[in-house]
Amino acid sequence: MSGAVHVVLASASPARLGLLRAAGLDPAVEVAGVDEDALLAAVPDATPAEKVTTLAGAKATTVARRLDLADAVVIGCDSMLHIDGALVGKPASVDEARDRWRSMAGRTGELLTGHAVLRVVDGEIDRVAEGHAVTVVRFGEPAEDELETYLATGEPLAVAGAFTLDGLGGWFVEGVDGDPSNVVGLSLPLVRRLLAGVGVSVTRLWAPPPARA
Amino acid sequence: MSGAVHVVLASASPARLGLLRAAGLDPAVEVAGVDEDALLAAVPDATPAEKVTTLAGAKATTVARRLDLADAVVIGCDSMLHIDGALVGKPASVDEARDRWRSMAGRTGELLTGHAVLRVVDGEIDRVAEGHAVTVVRFGEPAEDELETYLATGEPLAVAGAFTLDGLGGWFVEGVDGDPSNVVGLSLPLVRRLLAGVGVSVTRLWAPPPARA
Repeated sequence: MSGAVHVVLASASPARLGLLRAAGLDPAVEVAGVDEDALLAAVPDATPAEKVTTLAGAKATTVARRLDLADAVVIGCDSMLHIDGALVGKPASVDEARDRWRSMAGRTGELLTGHAVLRVVDGEIDRVAEGHAVTVVRFGEPAEDELETYLATGEPLAVAGAFTLDGLGGWFVEGVDGDPSNVVGLSLPLVRRLLAGVGVSVTRLWAPPPARA
Repeated sequence: MSGAVHVVLASASPARLGLLRAAGLDPAVEVAGVDEDALLAAVPDATPAEKVTTLAGAKATTVARRLDLADAVVIGCDSMLHIDGALVGKPASVDEARDRWRSMAGRTGELLTGHAVLRVVDGEIDRVAEGHAVTVVRFGEPAEDELETYLATGEPLAVAGAFTLDGLGGWFVEGVDGDPSNVVGLSLPLVRRLLAGVGVSVTRLWAPPPARA
């Protein structure tokens, strides 16, 4: 292999972009705009892991077909919180986010992220690697006034499970068991393995100069 | 309590500063410049947790005495990796960082961070809260060429244990058990509790506008 491999992130998530940039990549962002509800309705019997991986694959494939790049990898991801037997995405309102926090405070949930890495050669999808990761999240117990202040920032409305690990929500997460980057929305060690699976070493993608020297 | 509480980070670590900024704080940075070796030599029988907490307290106290602020909190931290019965800080050379990675790849270590939060009122230290957190880190196994590329970036030389979770090193950490922000160098949930211990709610310190809305 020679020449530059373009990296494309098939996600509008600023958290995923920030994570990749901090980890030395400088991806282009292309948002797939897939109909997630329709995709999930098509796989009603899928497990939570299958659901997030299906959505990740659909996002990456949609973007890869739209591109016209000689040599690229396209990374698609989808995250959901699995708690109380339900798979929850972004809350629809402040009230829903408040209810979510009241129900999960002091307890644990599983953050699932599905990943798809597509190798594009001469504009065609050449190789595909998919996988998911699960990280257990132990939620803290924000006081009433802390929760209201947090809700008022708007942050919980933008993210699966109404919390972040890498933003303001970090104060209210006691710990995790598993890969923390998976909670942010993209598991770095899993993506490293998926990249290797399509024939690309992650260090080859590090943008010079490195993010932190 | 009324008026603004100044937040001062008694650490030169860009990772700690970035973590606090992402979590809504905008601290001033004041580096203590304490003689860590001399401080540790004075407590030869201390446990690893006592050592990092002693250093964190010394940093915060040194900075707090230097300040002339009416109302402030000073946060001091010190991080070390506990592995193979030894407490290791920053590697002294590329060779030491390479040896460290060859020894810890595929294994686990404990990242300890000591924390001290000092409440300063009218220029005097009014209240003190200290504590430490331990996070288990499961290291991945970088290939030889990945490790050499990582060493060449310089990142491992700047950090305790020769790895980061929030930078390039994130590709080579399989997961953690505990608070991931503690691995970056400052446990957000612990600092939230220590702040409460000196009478300050963390949400009161959030800089408007929030880091992510």
